[in-house]
Amino acid sequence: MEKNTTGRLIAATATESADIVYGSGFFAPDEYIYAEIGGEKYVFVSVLELARARQEVRPGINVVDSAEVLRKAPTDCKRCLVAAISRVYGVTHWQVPERFPLIYAKKLHAAGVSVEISDGSFFPERAIKRPDEIEKLRAAEAVTQEAQLQVRDFIAESTVNSQGFLEWHGKVLTCEFIRSEVEAEFKRKSYSSVGAIIACGPDSALPHCIGSGPVKAGAPLVSDIFPRSDVNGYWGDMTRTFVKGKASKRLFEMYKAVRYVNEAVEAQLKPGIPCSLMQDFCIKTLAEAGFKTGVDDEGYPCGYFHGLGHSVGLEIHEQPRFSARNFELLQPGNVITVEPGLYYHDIGGVRIEDLVLITETGMENFCNMPKDIEVP
Amino acid sequence: MEKNTTGRLIAATATESADIVYGSGFFAPDEYIYAEIGGEKYVFVSVLELARARQEVRPGINVVDSAEVLRKAPTDCKRCLVAAISRVYGVTHWQVPERFPLIYAKKLHAAGVSVEISDGSFFPERAIKRPDEIEKLRAAEAVTQEAQLQVRDFIAESTVNSQGFLEWHGKVLTCEFIRSEVEAEFKRKSYSSVGAIIACGPDSALPHCIGSGPVKAGAPLVSDIFPRSDVNGYWGDMTRTFVKGKASKRLFEMYKAVRYVNEAVEAQLKPGIPCSLMQDFCIKTLAEAGFKTGVDDEGYPCGYFHGLGHSVGLEIHEQPRFSARNFELLQPGNVITVEPGLYYHDIGGVRIEDLVLITETGMENFCNMPKDIEVP
Repeated sequence: MEKNTTGRLIAATATESADIVYGSGFFAPDEYIYAEIGGEKYVFVSVLELARARQEVRPGINVVDSAEVLRKAPTDCKRCLVAAISRVYGVTHWQVPERFPLIYAKKLHAAGVSVEISDGSFFPERAIKRPDEIEKLRAAEAVTQEAQLQVRDFIAESTVNSQGFLEWHGKVLTCEFIRSEVEAEFKRKSYSSVGAIIACGPDSALPHCIGSGPVKAGAPLVSDIFPRSDVNGYWGDMTRTFVKGKASKRLFEMYKAVRYVNEAVEAQLKPGIPCSLMQDFCIKTLAEAGFKTGVDDEGYPCGYFHGLGHSVGLEIHEQPRFSARNFELLQPGNVITVEPGLYYHDIGGVRIEDLVLITETGMENFCNMPKDIEVP
Repeated sequence: MEKNTTGRLIAATATESADIVYGSGFFAPDEYIYAEIGGEKYVFVSVLELARARQEVRPGINVVDSAEVLRKAPTDCKRCLVAAISRVYGVTHWQVPERFPLIYAKKLHAAGVSVEISDGSFFPERAIKRPDEIEKLRAAEAVTQEAQLQVRDFIAESTVNSQGFLEWHGKVLTCEFIRSEVEAEFKRKSYSSVGAIIACGPDSALPHCIGSGPVKAGAPLVSDIFPRSDVNGYWGDMTRTFVKGKASKRLFEMYKAVRYVNEAVEAQLKPGIPCSLMQDFCIKTLAEAGFKTGVDDEGYPCGYFHGLGHSVGLEIHEQPRFSARNFELLQPGNVITVEPGLYYHDIGGVRIEDLVLITETGMENFCNMPKDIEVP
């Protein structure tokens, strides 16, 4: 084997690192190693994973039995796979991702191998989705939209009892019940969802509250659902806000403003648009429509106080993001959410989120479900 | 604030690190920081997580707004939370876990703070479960057993068609269908399962194969199910092997041997027993019963070739383990699996796994479901 000096290395489980899945194509539960050495790409796995890895890795990647490398390694590094790989493949310097485990850096150092954190993202090309990734994201968003229709159906099929709570097939409809039914249905499609936000009334004004308790007529229910494929690791992400019956005047105004911003942003999306511009537009438009952002009398954050959107791929939140400080320009192949919202503790929250693909000339919206808030 | 010198620190998400959940009690999706400084314990979270963290952390832990620490920090470390915490709390040296992200070690170094990997496990006390942990594990195993009963019911309720495949309510019963129905049902109980092993025939002889395709009468179906609580992060883990109708003579002999070892090990469990002794017993007993371990003519591993068991807690696989090289003695409070198995590619696999608690005088089996292989 030719001696090389510098390589790139990731040692992680698929749940720890989206980069290792992106690099290798192998979505495995146990820790494995991905390496780039002298123009070749490698995956090092245990003998139990060899067959599956060979089936799943991207074309051209060499799949190697870790035990084989340890056998070939000099005595002083037989007990550490990353050190053994370095010696056997003649690597004296590795570029690694930011979250590379400190223990491996120490062991490599002890074996005379240096380690440097890769500047910026390990795979900056993750921002531009390949055609196969676009397909996986479109499919994930399609099942996410099916879940939103399921939530809407629960509300539509419910009646309102004398206390103003929704009843579905004779029992009070709760946020927990909707969440568990939605998440159960995902498993039937080989997707996993944990902590889907089904939050009603004041809870819907707290963006990190997943919601609990009965669903109340007239109160907004924020449904923010983000499943991950069990097969390939790509995520969906979509939000709708529903109210059973009529929305109050104020709630309907919030909804109209949020929907206007959601659609106005989507209409502007195309390559070359700065991400920050969309966030600025959202802040300015909601403020001009009379919605105050800040802290309310009880100390709750109110108005519009989060980012307009984030990219989605092998991570639920990835780059680029629509934030005020991100001056990157949109590019064809970005897959990003558009999710303005307004939150007032006394009324609740309204958020509308689509997932869109930036195309050569504009965008393709992966969601085509109506955005109406009122459910009869 | 008094100046301290050495502290202990974890920076991770709950999915990356069981230690951070164990230390803090806070099972949150986003990255946060847990620290021990001068006898006090702290959790540093974003403002969005403050309320939930205050509710969920263990008694006595201080919950701190990360932004507050960044505000108080000197200018040169305002952009790095771990450095800011070090300065504001006067820590000049941290003990960290093995998988501490390298980027933070570098940033701390740049801020004049040294980092040392904690010797051995970060929380060795995780091996001895507290009463509240035992409750959570018992509850997780109870729902896992319900899932095993569900699998058994699918098989019992099926008929055998002319090709020898099982049919359930008029359609061919597949491993994928059983898995998705079992995993869907878990969501209704606020548990998540991904990749439950439902493997039939030759697939059941490959311990990492999750299984696919129709269920065949007379062939062993290994059902190895391991869900995690969405609420507290504790796992269940249990395996049964089923065959529709009569097992062949050879398969039934494998089953009898595996069941004998499973029950004989459980009968011996008590504090003071070396973990290695149980693995040795299992290897010896299965060999003496005539089951050959090695590699078969086609190159498949065969016989008994994995560990007898592993502890379960906030990780699905934790210490101590029943392995030949683990000479640790069992202690009251260990919660560990007992899962002997036999695998032959031409017949399939048989594995029986219970989860047990080591008590002062013996063990408590969290599973009480029959271990019979044949399902009428």
